[in-house]
Amino acid sequence: MAVEVLEQLYEGKAKKVFKTSDDSLYMVEYKDDATAFNGEKRGTIEGKGVINNKVSAMLFQELEKHGIETHLVEFVDDTHMLVKRVEIVPLEVICRNVIAGSLAKRVGKEEGIVLPKTILEFSYKNDDLGDPMINRYHATALGLATDEEIDDIIAQAFKINDILKEVFAKANLVLVDFKLEFGRTPDGKIILADEISPDTCRLWDKDTHEKLDKDRFRRDLGDVEEAYIEVYNRLKKIGL
Amino acid sequence: MAVEVLEQLYEGKAKKVFKTSDDSLYMVEYKDDATAFNGEKRGTIEGKGVINNKVSAMLFQELEKHGIETHLVEFVDDTHMLVKRVEIVPLEVICRNVIAGSLAKRVGKEEGIVLPKTILEFSYKNDDLGDPMINRYHATALGLATDEEIDDIIAQAFKINDILKEVFAKANLVLVDFKLEFGRTPDGKIILADEISPDTCRLWDKDTHEKLDKDRFRRDLGDVEEAYIEVYNRLKKIGL
Repeated sequence: MAVEVLEQLYEGKAKKVFKTSDDSLYMVEYKDDATAFNGEKRGTIEGKGVINNKVSAMLFQELEKHGIETHLVEFVDDTHMLVKRVEIVPLEVICRNVIAGSLAKRVGKEEGIVLPKTILEFSYKNDDLGDPMINRYHATALGLATDEEIDDIIAQAFKINDILKEVFAKANLVLVDFKLEFGRTPDGKIILADEISPDTCRLWDKDTHEKLDKDRFRRDLGDVEEAYIEVYNRLKKIGL
Repeated sequence: MAVEVLEQLYEGKAKKVFKTSDDSLYMVEYKDDATAFNGEKRGTIEGKGVINNKVSAMLFQELEKHGIETHLVEFVDDTHMLVKRVEIVPLEVICRNVIAGSLAKRVGKEEGIVLPKTILEFSYKNDDLGDPMINRYHATALGLATDEEIDDIIAQAFKINDILKEVFAKANLVLVDFKLEFGRTPDGKIILADEISPDTCRLWDKDTHEKLDKDRFRRDLGDVEEAYIEVYNRLKKIGL
């Protein structure tokens, strides 16, 4: 690796971000720490950092093949990836194909109902406020993104959903829902950032509907590490 | 009045709706009952029904002049208006010009901040769920409205906001935010329904920022009846 890792810029719940000797690149380190319910539940998922780093790299590479620009530059080692320097747009972009989690509660429907069309949601990335759900009007009025950026993000999110649904289907997994984050490059382009992993996706076995994602941690279902490894193995098996 | 009022179809928190001898018309009766916080707080605002009926009729007539079709057919008497039969779209459409109420809490900003652009929100009209905030994707995926209807509703809501802001400004009132409901006519047209009153608008005196709306009831500020009457008198004074 040609770049040198410099000081830590940021430590989140699941990752650390470091400056590097190349001004246009950051180094991301994936951690085993797990939190849920806005930090109320905390724990460690052994080996999660490695799996999430690998799974994210695989999925970013797959998305790139389909014309989605991501922040991934290079998979460095088990827990590190080199990424493009972006300014994270403070929005969580959630795509939902099947009713689960907070949506089930919000609209009073049972988990597991397949939606007739994908639901896209925005949350305002703000821990103090508990990442509240907002919409595009809030986002633009609060100056979190411009109207053009929101249009771009929505179009990319739906395209990413189409690609990922197909990838996971090949791995016999249902992509129930997932969260994306986007970043602004220094020249103002909006590209996919953050991670795509069992931490940020709900993934169910297609046949048994067994949960193979962070809900095993959130809901104390056991076999958390095994579920993460299973997702990785299935993606590996289909050639990612 | 040529039509005969028949059986009650529906009783809501603030209004009753009756069938009439004309299949294309409903009779609406405005009540003095007041509720807040999803029915947790209940009370009576003396004379509210009369004021809300009169204010709604005045504002519907004003909107009609500006090309907005409303359900109002005829102001009948102090507490009754004859309206077109519509099927209510189960969405509360909220327009916000100034931060107040639930928005202040949601985004952690102070009440009173003027928004650089209007925020539009949808709530799913469902008492059991507490009228949760949703977005257009939820609305269409849940079958509450079609994409075309949502586009129509959004366009009408922004236009109504522009008109009402100007009307209230003439009455030295700031239109902080308000809630609209739309209905589907038997031939599938989306028109403005429900009411527009101090129950459904936040109205502040332009100079003193005194609240002249249901927040006086919600927040036990006193002089509730007087505030409703003041709004009516000011609209009367500007010729509505």
